[in-house]
Amino acid sequence: MHALSYYQELISVYFTELHLNKEPKNLYEPIEYILHLGGKRMRPILTLMATEVFDVDCKKALAAATAIEVFHNFSLVHDDIMDDAPLRRGNETVHEKWDVNTGILSGDAMLILAYQHFEEYEPKIFRELAKLFSKTALEVCEGQQYDVDFETREDVTIPEYLKMIEYKTAVLVGAAMKMGAIVAETSEENANLIYDFGLNLGIAFQLQDDYLDAFGNPETFGKQVGGDIIENKKTYLYLKAMEFSNADEKEQLTHLFSIQPSDNSDKIESVKSIFNQTKASEATQKAIQEYTFKAFETLEKMNISSDKKQMLKAFGENLMNRNV
Amino acid sequence: MHALSYYQELISVYFTELHLNKEPKNLYEPIEYILHLGGKRMRPILTLMATEVFDVDCKKALAAATAIEVFHNFSLVHDDIMDDAPLRRGNETVHEKWDVNTGILSGDAMLILAYQHFEEYEPKIFRELAKLFSKTALEVCEGQQYDVDFETREDVTIPEYLKMIEYKTAVLVGAAMKMGAIVAETSEENANLIYDFGLNLGIAFQLQDDYLDAFGNPETFGKQVGGDIIENKKTYLYLKAMEFSNADEKEQLTHLFSIQPSDNSDKIESVKSIFNQTKASEATQKAIQEYTFKAFETLEKMNISSDKKQMLKAFGENLMNRNV
Repeated sequence: MHALSYYQELISVYFTELHLNKEPKNLYEPIEYILHLGGKRMRPILTLMATEVFDVDCKKALAAATAIEVFHNFSLVHDDIMDDAPLRRGNETVHEKWDVNTGILSGDAMLILAYQHFEEYEPKIFRELAKLFSKTALEVCEGQQYDVDFETREDVTIPEYLKMIEYKTAVLVGAAMKMGAIVAETSEENANLIYDFGLNLGIAFQLQDDYLDAFGNPETFGKQVGGDIIENKKTYLYLKAMEFSNADEKEQLTHLFSIQPSDNSDKIESVKSIFNQTKASEATQKAIQEYTFKAFETLEKMNISSDKKQMLKAFGENLMNRNV
Repeated sequence: MHALSYYQELISVYFTELHLNKEPKNLYEPIEYILHLGGKRMRPILTLMATEVFDVDCKKALAAATAIEVFHNFSLVHDDIMDDAPLRRGNETVHEKWDVNTGILSGDAMLILAYQHFEEYEPKIFRELAKLFSKTALEVCEGQQYDVDFETREDVTIPEYLKMIEYKTAVLVGAAMKMGAIVAETSEENANLIYDFGLNLGIAFQLQDDYLDAFGNPETFGKQVGGDIIENKKTYLYLKAMEFSNADEKEQLTHLFSIQPSDNSDKIESVKSIFNQTKASEATQKAIQEYTFKAFETLEKMNISSDKKQMLKAFGENLMNRNV
């Protein structure tokens, strides 16, 4: 196994050689732009790591890892249009820098380009990768649709919310790791277990994102702390608070999630107090631990050496202990 | 070989069994809607026909044919957003009936669903189909981008225009036929020849569409006659007229393509006069004949029985002699 920086370097070099300097410029320039805005490359790193877990050179998985990252960026381009977001990774979004039509069409091309990376592999592996990819990509679309639907629904349940974040975020983490297993041609059982590992870690990560959005350290959390509260977003914290609150707290929270004051600091503090009072924050931390534990449990069942298990566990712990 | 109605019926039955009655409804209902608005199903019919040309039961090609039709409808949904078109096949477009975000996301899901239909096939054929599909789909995106770019360019050349319609329209016709050949597992040479047949017929068809838009019979031409002239669209007719016109005609045509009068009938008549005067209409008819002839020439090289060649030729003649 290698250090993260090794995988990052491999991916970085591979990405500079993608030959996206093609005609028509108005189609390919936005693709180059978004792919080179950076990001942590977490998903492709997981693909490379998973391949090495099964004792195969991770370079063999570079094409599959790239497909995952190109797809992830496709979904960002189209989601940013739908959310009318002006910024991505501190830079203008594609539809802001160009226009909405360019964002739609360049996004479409990226989805197709993602599939093309699987052409590196021979038919059997190609089919397995593309099949997993299609299933996952469709789930990501479904997750995005649920997320949109939930904005205007007042009766979202916790299981529905968990399904939404599973589809919108976690399945791609699971698929990224399973692709490494497919490229390594390990057993189907190992491939499914590493998928579950990634899936549960992905859910834990997203729940932690909900938690940190309210309780994270503004110095180190990448986004604006309180952003979800400002946008009245029904996160896990909110849904748990509604579940646990008494009549009075429920009324307060409902009111707070209906207003949009010009200065949000009071609103954020009041909401956070209710999250704490109702023990919603405690329940969220418990859920994060449960999903993390579930991921580590899955590891134990895998037919790999114990140092490989230790390595994956360390990676998971590192991911979940991001400085807050 | 069968009658067109036989293929149409097969496709119709297959489409009613697609199981798109899924959750989330806001994602899948628009897909069901657009897929059941009808249309002539020309592309999937060509896939089925191509399979039978190589003596294989066309039912084996139903999944590939469906992929082509689902992709075609995906491109309509996204193109209609980009063109801000209110109507498609006489009904509301998806983004009109729902909204732009629904159109984007349902379209994305359709592109993925198209790929999933190839999962009917074993690895070797799956890979060939998906590879051809990705190449073609990317070309269609490039063609759409060229079309958008040409709107604001005054120096579009005839070869550039031909490349645009080849990518935007004709490659999908070629690919539809080649997929039939791939499913039938015929020789690579036959598969490439039937692709060229479809490609050239597709170009001829699109050039004829340009011609009929100006000179077609309003009773039988499916769209509004003069629509391209009203929209100042630089079609083959326009580009040829600019090439052949004297200084006076060029000035007139440039002026006519800069105005948007409330009553278009005078403009349409004046433009058509220039198309005739400059012999641009004649040149367009000649180009249509040349591409049709090129398609038929390709047929002759194919290693199939002469009655099969006759059948494909009859289909092509029928397509090109649509009543005007």
